[in-house]
Amino acid sequence: MPVRELFNPRSIALVGATDKSGWSISTLANLRAHGFPGPVHLVNPRGGVVHGSPAVRSLTEISEPVDLAYVMVPTTAVLGVLREGAKLGIRCYVILTAGFGEVGEEGARLEAEISAFAAENGLTILGPNGNGYINAAAGITPYGLPIPPPLLRGEVGVVLQSGALASSVLAFAQARNVGVSLLTSMGNESVLTVTDVIDYLVDDPATKVIALFLETIRNPAEFARVARRALEAGKPIVALKIGRSKLASHTAQAHTGALVGDDDVIDAALRQLGVVRVRSLEDLIITAGLLGSTGPLPGRRVGVVTPSGGASEIIADRAEDEGLELPPFAPETVARLAEIVPSFGTVQNPLDVTGYVLIDRTLLGRALEVVTADPGIDLIMLLSEPPKVAPLDPAPAFAMYSASAQRIAASPVPVVVVSNVLTDVTEFGRRVQQETGFPYVAGGIEHGMHAIGAAVRWSEMRDRALSRPAALPRAVSPPPGAHGVWAEHRASALLASAGLPVVPSELARSETDAVAAAEGFGYPVVLKVAAEGLGHKSDIGGVRLGLADAEQVRRAYQEVVAAVPSLDGVLVQPQRGGGVELLVGVVRDPAWGLTLAVGLGGVWVEVLRDTALRVLPVDAAEIRTALSELRGTALLNGIRGGQAADLDAVADVVARIAAFAESLGDGLESLEINPLLVAGSRVEALDALVTWR
Amino acid sequence: MPVRELFNPRSIALVGATDKSGWSISTLANLRAHGFPGPVHLVNPRGGVVHGSPAVRSLTEISEPVDLAYVMVPTTAVLGVLREGAKLGIRCYVILTAGFGEVGEEGARLEAEISAFAAENGLTILGPNGNGYINAAAGITPYGLPIPPPLLRGEVGVVLQSGALASSVLAFAQARNVGVSLLTSMGNESVLTVTDVIDYLVDDPATKVIALFLETIRNPAEFARVARRALEAGKPIVALKIGRSKLASHTAQAHTGALVGDDDVIDAALRQLGVVRVRSLEDLIITAGLLGSTGPLPGRRVGVVTPSGGASEIIADRAEDEGLELPPFAPETVARLAEIVPSFGTVQNPLDVTGYVLIDRTLLGRALEVVTADPGIDLIMLLSEPPKVAPLDPAPAFAMYSASAQRIAASPVPVVVVSNVLTDVTEFGRRVQQETGFPYVAGGIEHGMHAIGAAVRWSEMRDRALSRPAALPRAVSPPPGAHGVWAEHRASALLASAGLPVVPSELARSETDAVAAAEGFGYPVVLKVAAEGLGHKSDIGGVRLGLADAEQVRRAYQEVVAAVPSLDGVLVQPQRGGGVELLVGVVRDPAWGLTLAVGLGGVWVEVLRDTALRVLPVDAAEIRTALSELRGTALLNGIRGGQAADLDAVADVVARIAAFAESLGDGLESLEINPLLVAGSRVEALDALVTWR
Repeated sequence: MPVRELFNPRSIALVGATDKSGWSISTLANLRAHGFPGPVHLVNPRGGVVHGSPAVRSLTEISEPVDLAYVMVPTTAVLGVLREGAKLGIRCYVILTAGFGEVGEEGARLEAEISAFAAENGLTILGPNGNGYINAAAGITPYGLPIPPPLLRGEVGVVLQSGALASSVLAFAQARNVGVSLLTSMGNESVLTVTDVIDYLVDDPATKVIALFLETIRNPAEFARVARRALEAGKPIVALKIGRSKLASHTAQAHTGALVGDDDVIDAALRQLGVVRVRSLEDLIITAGLLGSTGPLPGRRVGVVTPSGGASEIIADRAEDEGLELPPFAPETVARLAEIVPSFGTVQNPLDVTGYVLIDRTLLGRALEVVTADPGIDLIMLLSEPPKVAPLDPAPAFAMYSASAQRIAASPVPVVVVSNVLTDVTEFGRRVQQETGFPYVAGGIEHGMHAIGAAVRWSEMRDRALSRPAALPRAVSPPPGAHGVWAEHRASALLASAGLPVVPSELARSETDAVAAAEGFGYPVVLKVAAEGLGHKSDIGGVRLGLADAEQVRRAYQEVVAAVPSLDGVLVQPQRGGGVELLVGVVRDPAWGLTLAVGLGGVWVEVLRDTALRVLPVDAAEIRTALSELRGTALLNGIRGGQAADLDAVADVVARIAAFAESLGDGLESLEINPLLVAGSRVEALDALVTWR
Repeated sequence: MPVRELFNPRSIALVGATDKSGWSISTLANLRAHGFPGPVHLVNPRGGVVHGSPAVRSLTEISEPVDLAYVMVPTTAVLGVLREGAKLGIRCYVILTAGFGEVGEEGARLEAEISAFAAENGLTILGPNGNGYINAAAGITPYGLPIPPPLLRGEVGVVLQSGALASSVLAFAQARNVGVSLLTSMGNESVLTVTDVIDYLVDDPATKVIALFLETIRNPAEFARVARRALEAGKPIVALKIGRSKLASHTAQAHTGALVGDDDVIDAALRQLGVVRVRSLEDLIITAGLLGSTGPLPGRRVGVVTPSGGASEIIADRAEDEGLELPPFAPETVARLAEIVPSFGTVQNPLDVTGYVLIDRTLLGRALEVVTADPGIDLIMLLSEPPKVAPLDPAPAFAMYSASAQRIAASPVPVVVVSNVLTDVTEFGRRVQQETGFPYVAGGIEHGMHAIGAAVRWSEMRDRALSRPAALPRAVSPPPGAHGVWAEHRASALLASAGLPVVPSELARSETDAVAAAEGFGYPVVLKVAAEGLGHKSDIGGVRLGLADAEQVRRAYQEVVAAVPSLDGVLVQPQRGGGVELLVGVVRDPAWGLTLAVGLGGVWVEVLRDTALRVLPVDAAEIRTALSELRGTALLNGIRGGQAADLDAVADVVARIAAFAESLGDGLESLEINPLLVAGSRVEALDALVTWR
């Protein structure tokens, strides 16, 4: 698809231009105000004068080549415009017109016609039902809503699955002095999709960071592909993905599935893909602005330099929330700071150089310079911001901010500037930043600390994601009879056949068989009903534990057979004791495919829903990380004299289970091991259930 | 203390006024710029002309009465100024001068002299080491830092334990169009304290809501008193209390204490006192602004009216975070909305009236009017905001916002207006609000939803706090020998003597005694070592469970005696089974006094630290609420066939334990019951430990 052409036309036709439409007025005004250098042709079936300029009656009447048609005609006329344009060789379209898939069946039919026509003729279409785009880097702004001046050019590419929010995002970015490279309002995505635009932005030299507002991820596989490309290109993706609430998440059928809201899977997938997920529009822009300005941040150890004790303590609180460390300064740093900070101040991290900054305007800068040299710090957070209002004589302010900017530029570690509270960067403040090189200011401690945390996490996610190329499991044929629910007997045998550690088990069809099996294993043993299609065996009296001799085995056999009329036999297993029980489930998410849930058994999963999720494929190292995320992870490390689990062994087994589940192909619906018993380095599946599609 | 006089002087002397000091310049400029109507006298020991006006050499030279002296002289000269002023009958002082308690011992000595002198002479002092105050309601601004215009008057009283942050708070409030009644920068609080100012604000007719920035709560009892007064007056207190991080919280000694960081206690105390705690400066002002504007919000059921689908979904996510409900609209509301909302829109809550608002400027207002009449809604959230920039012809904008303002004013339920993102209210926006009566706009969905949640929680906390007057326990004399650690034997007897349910127990000093006791209770029984000063009996082999006959009791007796050389005897108890184990601890917090922690035993407390805290006194209803806050609360309701606990019975016993702990007086350090066994309506302490101070 000619995406680059779409965003970089040399000439534009506004089809359906009319003085009666606010969209038409805004689009032309935007093109004129923000520097589009090429010709703009107005097309109106009645011709005449539109927006003060002569209009032609159709695309055909335009004598020059047209690179982009911006279409505002009635819904039923859109296809005609495309037909005419295609004949003339116009390949790129923005369709503002609404009334398609979003309004019902008839609209959807019209939209499908458009998509089909575009595919046949190699057309690129942004929309329909979208406001267009703003290519700020190139000054090309075919966009149907007013763009409040100034339009700031910068490093952030913005892709929005919302029309109404685009104006808010633009206004907020402007208030933060965050410039955009390209902003697109996607509309119905009937031809061009979010992932197409991300693909373009990854290659776009003007773009350093990509900000997304997502209502839905239409094609997870494509999304994963472009996210990977962005990671490899070193361009962070920051996403506000909405639909977190319970209302929005569906309930899956399988047991493991019931623990897994849609949004939990999306959350896990985004983390695995190295996408920074944020919770608010403010965080979206502030975080993207920071990543566009400083690039990746190298570590969690933050040196904090402020002129305020109160702010320092807020920062300490927020640093802990974000998992950032504020290590003590090195002795040489402390010694040098003691010479600078007034005697009534305290030299510590976070550093408050005191309100004496009002007297000595160089104090903060000199302290900053000392802290930048500290060997134990990965980055600096400097509490500062450009002035709001021009003083009568602005020269001293410019000189002071120039000096700060030079100190910040000279720092061997990144310096992130954060303001106390989130108020607009004013026009004068922007001028100071532009003229002195004073860097980006993350707006307010609250959102600024979030942005620093997110930027650090991005670097870590990136390292992890890139260091582990996804290993594809070798496919095995699905076993014969792979349909319905396979209860423990067949499920465990399947796992064992793949070399996975499963508790030994024999199927007994008589008391004598059962006793023989028990004698073989040694007492105590467990008896379990073996019958397909049963859910919780224990709920129907189908499990007998702790059988200590032949007599108990015989009695238990009789009872189990009596309790469950039509059974395939009785499973005999050695009884295992001690250790910690895990639940390991692999369940097919409708969007993201097979997803692994791992958690501790018992109350942990039943009451707390304490599971860690990963979209497959996943390796053992990632599973170790997942285990460390569990709230009950201390149990695995051994508490109150309990044996510590061999986490490498656990992770290895879980990774093999996950890979085996993947190898079973598209027929697998879910595979659940509950419990997976862990005792030191012994890891063994005690029960299993497989559901086929 | 004459606090009202301090904040309402008719004449002011600036003592130490000099052209060389920025503070002096700012203070005089502030008084002149913001409308102080009375005389301002400049005092400088050299006399002459200061700030362009003649100065006197001392307070004595002023011929008129002085109500307030604003003191900026060197540290060692401050006491002399007070002496002179007291002689002249000047009762109120702001001391800007620093160099007191905050710099070390010598400064602390000087500060103590000042406090003592003030106490002897009935003086009120704000500071030292504070910037003064801004009484915006009265236009009295003895404040040492520049106040950026305009100074907005309004309903929010602000009290700050920080000088540097006052300017940020003021700037942010201005950007939100939130007016203040009084803002004070407390300084060292050597005479006037935060609680004195709160007390004043509770009585101040200009103040509807109180916003606090707190580094420390110096006097919890006083704080509790003024918080209660504020609740009774219907004036919400919103507080940003910093020092949440682990760095800031100390580790207590007792077992229960170790689960209780200082900040957890403060958090519990603030909730019990009906104080809304927020996490950021932005939330402080946005929440206070909302409460000042709408007053208490009556319930959690929110009707949402927006012109944007994307915003609606963000709101749905945030509503869930805040515990707000978005119930479906009533059928009559749906029917009426269906006539208004364009056919391509969807009528639901949250309501998106669609981008058609750009064509039909009355759409949002008409939809709002319909939703305000919905019978199932407690309040409305309307997504809107005043314009940023004046259009060429502002008349239509004024007309539109006037119409909205009238609709909002006519609504039978509160309407909270929220903007999409947090950007400054511009000067034009403020003008529109002022001239049309368009209400307060909570800045941005992220913070706006937090503010709505907080306002709703405040109403609920208020109802709860006011409906339950604290019952004072009747004091009992501390028992004889109340020192050190009382192990189970004495602790359980103490509880039993107060009529609390404790498992029966006999102290046996021989095998024969032990067997006799066991026969009396019936088997199985438990044997436990009884010796003072022991911590975990089970760790030293001092507990034997499930003893089924006399022989087992004899053997266990021998083993326990062998394991613990110097013991007082062996406790024999009937063995209890089933049920859920709770931990109930009462521990003395150094600041807030006796604090109750209640949680589930086992991993819940050991791994998850899942406890609910309350500062005493507390009643059974509050304890029921506390139990419902536990993450493991489902266990109490009975899961997987487990018996449901009688929560009324549990709450009653825990309340009686708490009251009993209080009745033991100041000598009690901690009282821990672990476990308190709950089986249905049977609630029984199985073990206890008391520590005396």
